[in-house]
Amino acid sequence: MKDFDTIGAISTSIGEGGLAVIRVSGDKAREFIDKIFKAKNGKSLMDMKSYTMRYGHIIDEDGNHVDEVIVSFMKGPRSFTAEDTIEINCHGGVVATKRVLEQVIKQGVRLAEPGEFTKRAFLNGRIDLSQAEAVIDIINAKTDLSMKSALMQSEGIISKEIGSLRESLISTIAHIEATVDYPEDDLEEVTAEMGIKDLEVVKAELKRLIDTAEEGKILREGLSTVIVGKPNVGKSSLLNALTRENRAIVTDIPGTTRDVIEEYINISGVPIKIVDTAGIRETEDVVEKIGVERSREKIKEADLIILILDSSRGLSEEDKEIINHISDKKYMVLLNKSDLNSKINKDDLASLNSKNIFRISAKTGEGIDDVRNAIKELFFKGEIASNNVIITNTRHKESLFRAYESIVSAIDILKNTFAIDLASIDIRNAWTFLGEITGDSLEENIIDKIFKDFCLGK
Amino acid sequence: MKDFDTIGAISTSIGEGGLAVIRVSGDKAREFIDKIFKAKNGKSLMDMKSYTMRYGHIIDEDGNHVDEVIVSFMKGPRSFTAEDTIEINCHGGVVATKRVLEQVIKQGVRLAEPGEFTKRAFLNGRIDLSQAEAVIDIINAKTDLSMKSALMQSEGIISKEIGSLRESLISTIAHIEATVDYPEDDLEEVTAEMGIKDLEVVKAELKRLIDTAEEGKILREGLSTVIVGKPNVGKSSLLNALTRENRAIVTDIPGTTRDVIEEYINISGVPIKIVDTAGIRETEDVVEKIGVERSREKIKEADLIILILDSSRGLSEEDKEIINHISDKKYMVLLNKSDLNSKINKDDLASLNSKNIFRISAKTGEGIDDVRNAIKELFFKGEIASNNVIITNTRHKESLFRAYESIVSAIDILKNTFAIDLASIDIRNAWTFLGEITGDSLEENIIDKIFKDFCLGK
Repeated sequence: MKDFDTIGAISTSIGEGGLAVIRVSGDKAREFIDKIFKAKNGKSLMDMKSYTMRYGHIIDEDGNHVDEVIVSFMKGPRSFTAEDTIEINCHGGVVATKRVLEQVIKQGVRLAEPGEFTKRAFLNGRIDLSQAEAVIDIINAKTDLSMKSALMQSEGIISKEIGSLRESLISTIAHIEATVDYPEDDLEEVTAEMGIKDLEVVKAELKRLIDTAEEGKILREGLSTVIVGKPNVGKSSLLNALTRENRAIVTDIPGTTRDVIEEYINISGVPIKIVDTAGIRETEDVVEKIGVERSREKIKEADLIILILDSSRGLSEEDKEIINHISDKKYMVLLNKSDLNSKINKDDLASLNSKNIFRISAKTGEGIDDVRNAIKELFFKGEIASNNVIITNTRHKESLFRAYESIVSAIDILKNTFAIDLASIDIRNAWTFLGEITGDSLEENIIDKIFKDFCLGK
Repeated sequence: MKDFDTIGAISTSIGEGGLAVIRVSGDKAREFIDKIFKAKNGKSLMDMKSYTMRYGHIIDEDGNHVDEVIVSFMKGPRSFTAEDTIEINCHGGVVATKRVLEQVIKQGVRLAEPGEFTKRAFLNGRIDLSQAEAVIDIINAKTDLSMKSALMQSEGIISKEIGSLRESLISTIAHIEATVDYPEDDLEEVTAEMGIKDLEVVKAELKRLIDTAEEGKILREGLSTVIVGKPNVGKSSLLNALTRENRAIVTDIPGTTRDVIEEYINISGVPIKIVDTAGIRETEDVVEKIGVERSREKIKEADLIILILDSSRGLSEEDKEIINHISDKKYMVLLNKSDLNSKINKDDLASLNSKNIFRISAKTGEGIDDVRNAIKELFFKGEIASNNVIITNTRHKESLFRAYESIVSAIDILKNTFAIDLASIDIRNAWTFLGEITGDSLEENIIDKIFKDFCLGK
């Protein structure tokens, strides 16, 4: 274990809650907290065994009670950070938690940076970088499926996969170098063929992994979906119909805060982030203009546009304007009010230029299931097998892609030249790119940047 | 301990956080969780010692990992609820926490109602009602001072006080009854005199407690303050000036959520809830009218109004309208822009009819400290001694007041009639009213109502 200072932070979400946990990690964790903890049984924390708890009070410098707490101790390396760790289980609530944290900081514990506990676990070698990144994905997971995938990643499923690919590359490099070192054996051709065979296997696997990344990204970040349509065409009714059975993910636990993720709906495990839009028509009104500007911005960023038309009327100028605006995006068209007579004709439909046209009635619920399935199928080629590696992280995808390109280049060299040792440079690059995923080969400032995105207290 | 079922809930605040805690309390807590917990060391939870922890995974019915957790066990009665308690320390985040909770509930654990853990602690006799109520006050505390006062209450400072008052009443009743039982001794007059003397002591103490309640309520709920004034008079600058040194309570911890209490500012330990207002002028505009309506509503509910006038101009019609509107409230007047020439004259000032007029400059900060002190002094007669009992709870105040009235009536009877046993009815009533505070004499449905106001998971 390396020589780090002792850090602390509130590790639970901050707000109204029955209890909160303040985590302190580092060599001096026990020593520092012992000074501000008065155990009911009068004992010092210093004689506490690992994985035990003690009841008492956090006290201030005058011995006044600051809060009633339970302190637990996990001796490193058997802890989250792999360092000695104290967790103070105190009353929830902002002021109560803050008062305890203040006493902790006063002892000399440094306030942890976001993600610093997980970073310690990484720097101390308990987990690799992809596992560390999975921790934040678990916390931010929007659906069961994304949580499952993040949990598997945290348990090292990607690390294992990357590890075996890198081993294969190392073995190919060794072969090539041995051949080059003993040119008299004249083995270049044999080695090149073997190398190509092995690299093709790696290349195929990289391709497979990269192919999961589009789905993976959506799994992790949600599908950004914008519902557009002129006023009163049924946008909010559609939203209600879509969410009727799968309401915002957390609402089945009474009392949970909906604010955080209420913009997400869950369609067969796919988190759909629904974005509300104002109109997108040209306007002279200044305030309205800002709304229109924002809507256009959102349409630009969206993964999917859902255009709603009122089928009980023909296509209006406004509709056409909207269609024009979204024509270069992935979009589906819903002809709402299918319960009324349709006034949208064939020519109109042809002009829509979309394979995904559905007649629905947001009012009666007709066609809504088809829309759900279509959203899913548009983005997921098949069922997401729960035991397969899925690349959910854009950083990983980029590294995989660079490794893939290096392999392609290496294969090319092996096929077209006798200077096979030129290929080993590319293979080594691929090996390095893959190592970025697990953090084996990554510069410190990039690692710092990754952990900065974590939440405080993790 | 009584025969309760086993309950569970997420006990930490729900939202993004490094970790979350799910608490399970009841006879079968360990048995239920044992079925879904797979320890790293392979052992069953059933052989776990109290106040120890174990690392492992929560698993589903197929044995799949649901989350990586640390489980801790506190054997009753040495636990918060005084029952066997398991706490599952799992990943934070809404989905992760919910997944673990789902497995817990599937085992037969009932989802706890808000406050039910604390209610168990009360029903199992570990704490009394005033202590239970203090738990929620700790969690909701807005300032150090309110937290301290709630912590003292949770440690039984009110219970002790109420207990000794009730003992005194019981002893007076015993005296009276003994006298009435042996009328031949002709002791009525002596007993009446002694009774009056003892009751006067109780009465004075009740008076003292009731007198703390106004301050106590503000300490607990904050001082609802409305800043009014016509547009551009400097309302937001004042707010900035007031909060410059004492910004929203939690902002000195980086990363804490400000939303929850950012409307509170802290003036010498007094939580001030600042309410923003739109205008309060008569208007024909419909939208504006709603704003005006709301502002008036808020003024009505406020504990204090801060009126800002622009001293670089004279009193306008609009100012006068506002003054007229707030004339029956506690208000202070700030003459802003004291750095410019004052155009507000003596007559104007006289018409304000307030003793609390301050010349300030929100811009330079001049006079702001005086405003702070004035706010404090308006509501707090002196320093709040940190070791005195303060009644912060309106329910307690009401019970104290009813007890007080009964004592007044009892003293009256003892003074004016020889039928001294009539007084014992009033004294007994006072005794019962005081018992409501600690929960010794309170109907079940009222107790239920009190705990309903708790947050989930406590």
